[in-house]
Amino acid sequence: MSGKLVLHEYAASGNCYKVRLTAALLGLELERREYDIMKGETRTPEFLERVNPNGRIPVLQVGDRFIPESNAACHYLADGSRLLPRDPFDHADMLHWMFWEQYNHEPNIATLRFWMGWVGADKLSDAQRLQVPLKREAGNAALRLMNEHLSGRDWFVGNAMSLADICLFAYTHVADGGGFDLRLYPAVLEWIERIKGQPHYLPMNA
Amino acid sequence: MSGKLVLHEYAASGNCYKVRLTAALLGLELERREYDIMKGETRTPEFLERVNPNGRIPVLQVGDRFIPESNAACHYLADGSRLLPRDPFDHADMLHWMFWEQYNHEPNIATLRFWMGWVGADKLSDAQRLQVPLKREAGNAALRLMNEHLSGRDWFVGNAMSLADICLFAYTHVADGGGFDLRLYPAVLEWIERIKGQPHYLPMNA
Repeated sequence: MSGKLVLHEYAASGNCYKVRLTAALLGLELERREYDIMKGETRTPEFLERVNPNGRIPVLQVGDRFIPESNAACHYLADGSRLLPRDPFDHADMLHWMFWEQYNHEPNIATLRFWMGWVGADKLSDAQRLQVPLKREAGNAALRLMNEHLSGRDWFVGNAMSLADICLFAYTHVADGGGFDLRLYPAVLEWIERIKGQPHYLPMNA
Repeated sequence: MSGKLVLHEYAASGNCYKVRLTAALLGLELERREYDIMKGETRTPEFLERVNPNGRIPVLQVGDRFIPESNAACHYLADGSRLLPRDPFDHADMLHWMFWEQYNHEPNIATLRFWMGWVGADKLSDAQRLQVPLKREAGNAALRLMNEHLSGRDWFVGNAMSLADICLFAYTHVADGGGFDLRLYPAVLEWIERIKGQPHYLPMNA
């Protein structure tokens, strides 16, 4: 790790929380810089020029260099640690769950949480409103798949916690904010408690 | 690399092509097994049970183990090769572009290609139809960001081709199939030719 670590973030975002939780579990110091996404603070010319041309958070700053995309930032922090499997197959399997999270989980579960909790159900556009039942179904399919995978095992990959668990945990443990009922997924609930019980666990609102 | 490599795929999918292109550039033998996604062949009980409970291709089979998610499969194949940067920051930066591809690029550019070329513009649901202009705008924003990043540099990460280039190339070089005009993005067009000129380059329809 070379250079001071700064997290450019919006604290209520699960994607930003992933990076904070990874750092906490590994005992790494992170300086935090908050942007109000509801006021467009990540779309200013200065942010686009200096921090991330994609206009999104989180971005992990390492010295004077920047890593956008939450799961990539976690990967940088975890390099060489117990949270990254050393076996190439397990490493790829961990990445499989992290790519799956960004494609099948986040756009459904996190997006409904954002639409319900930030935008407001009565302020959705027509395109958004028509997507709600589709995202509800796809989000439940994602939770069901997680529940099946976790039935009879403690962690997503191999026999130890990895970034796959951390990255999936972030939006899963607050899925009720998007209208999902986690009581339907008992193995997921047990896994959530398992993560909360880890030494140096950091809650989302800490 | 342990065990025979089998790619479970639908050949016209850019996500599947990424895995074939990575293997070709590295001189790895891949056995190919085709499924017709338009006939639901990846949603059969046998496929869900044995290959991928998420019901999607590509899946890379390594001996008797399976890696779903295209970018994770590419990562497995490229382990220890020139396509994976050894520097931890560059590695994370490569992953940043691969996660960005799955979140900001593929759901816009690949989805419009699929809707226009496979589903048919006149057969879209209301929810899909309302998303077309949004995906058009987001897809062009992704291409614009790629064009800016590539202006003045040959590759996405550092000074060499990496998986970031391969994974972004797959759907970018056929973006016209989704109605995108690549002539607006000259640095992207040059980069496409750069990749096509690589030794052992494999076209999508090979």
